Amino acid sequence: MQVLDKLYEGKAKIVYATDDPDVVLQEFKDSATAGDGAKKGTIADKGRMNTAISAKLFTLLEENGVKTHFRGLQGDHAMFITRLDMLKVECVARNIAAGSLSQRIGYPEGKELKKPIVEFYLKDDALHDPLITCQHIQELGLLTDEQFARLKEQALKVNDVLRAFFLERGLLLVDFKLEFGLDSAGELVLGDEISPDTCRLWDAETHEKLDKDRFRRDLGDIAEAYQEIVRRIGA
Amino acid sequence: MQVLDKLYEGKAKIVYATDDPDVVLQEFKDSATAGDGAKKGTIADKGRMNTAISAKLFTLLEENGVKTHFRGLQGDHAMFITRLDMLKVECVARNIAAGSLSQRIGYPEGKELKKPIVEFYLKDDALHDPLITCQHIQELGLLTDEQFARLKEQALKVNDVLRAFFLERGLLLVDFKLEFGLDSAGELVLGDEISPDTCRLWDAETHEKLDKDRFRRDLGDIAEAYQEIVRRIGA
Repeated sequence: MQVLDKLYEGKAKIVYATDDPDVVLQEFKDSATAGDGAKKGTIADKGRMNTAISAKLFTLLEENGVKTHFRGLQGDHAMFITRLDMLKVECVARNIAAGSLSQRIGYPEGKELKKPIVEFYLKDDALHDPLITCQHIQELGLLTDEQFARLKEQALKVNDVLRAFFLERGLLLVDFKLEFGLDSAGELVLGDEISPDTCRLWDAETHEKLDKDRFRRDLGDIAEAYQEIVRRIGA
Repeated sequence: MQVLDKLYEGKAKIVYATDDPDVVLQEFKDSATAGDGAKKGTIADKGRMNTAISAKLFTLLEENGVKTHFRGLQGDHAMFITRLDMLKVECVARNIAAGSLSQRIGYPEGKELKKPIVEFYLKDDALHDPLITCQHIQELGLLTDEQFARLKEQALKVNDVLRAFFLERGLLLVDFKLEFGLDSAGELVLGDEISPDTCRLWDAETHEKLDKDRFRRDLGDIAEAYQEIVRRIGA
């Protein structure tokens, strides 16, 4: 497949067109941002590690009946993916309180939730990606009621699969963000990436953080944490 | 009925026990706060006006089948109310974008919503009364699923009744906050107050603000706006 023009460059990834209109190339960068873009930096070798981790997890999800955009690796920093019309809504699935949920409802970080929670956030940098409810989603016309139900169901399915997979490898899946899009047939497909940039992952015994919170909170040994995820999941 | 000890003093109201364990006296104060308590002031004669407005609107709602805590006036600054075990959730019903909804989803103030929205906020000063979803409510054990559905239904019913009532009087009901509680029989009852402190009300023609936003935003003529509401609704 021939790689053509750059279509988009975000904080952590670059997307290129290819000669197949249904396929784009997604390249992973080493750069990292946090705190709504206020904090910027580089995590050594992150692009390569997140490529490997995402490829592994998308493959696992496909094997478990979740449709993803992953089509195959291209070198060790990029993957071919199905071109999607991305939804303007992000899903966050949570098993353990941390981050904004702790702040919102006053739960101490680490408190296990009674059952998984799926939250929806409006993808809008200018509005700082606010939490929205199903009624806001209806008002904004972001999703049909069917798509909303399907999104929630898919997020919970992804959570079931990933949570069990990580736990077998001594890791707690605390929470994670998912982005979905519609393919050319209008079907809901999981896109973006699944990596320590988008998941909170803790060592199951020590609760040591092995994800981007090490960068957000200046905890040090950031690249080492990502490497440990690569090692544990055999990515 | 004999009025006994002060039970609670809030930002805008004081509650006293009575010799009937099922009844308390709710007194309305002239003091006003805004911006999470950052702004404090007094609105001349507000206590008396909000007493009259709330009594009028609770009576209207009772006539339309909504159970409220209102039992009768006591002088012109207070009302006897059913003693309720208040829920830790506030409902906000919205017809037109304003305030935090405009900020959250980026709608210009004044944009009419496709249909009314009901939002739920956690009553927790330390957490700054955050927006919460039905899943947060379940996690926190704040409401049963039945109570949640009933609350939403009641908020929409109140909205229908009040919106039509205000519109006949040349006023747009932009949005408003409701607080519910459980009576001694465990039934859901509308409590608190309904006044320009808790409703956004605009002149239907000019869109002039006739509510607490005049205080929040230093627009002047605050008491005059409350007086105009009293006048229009015949409170």
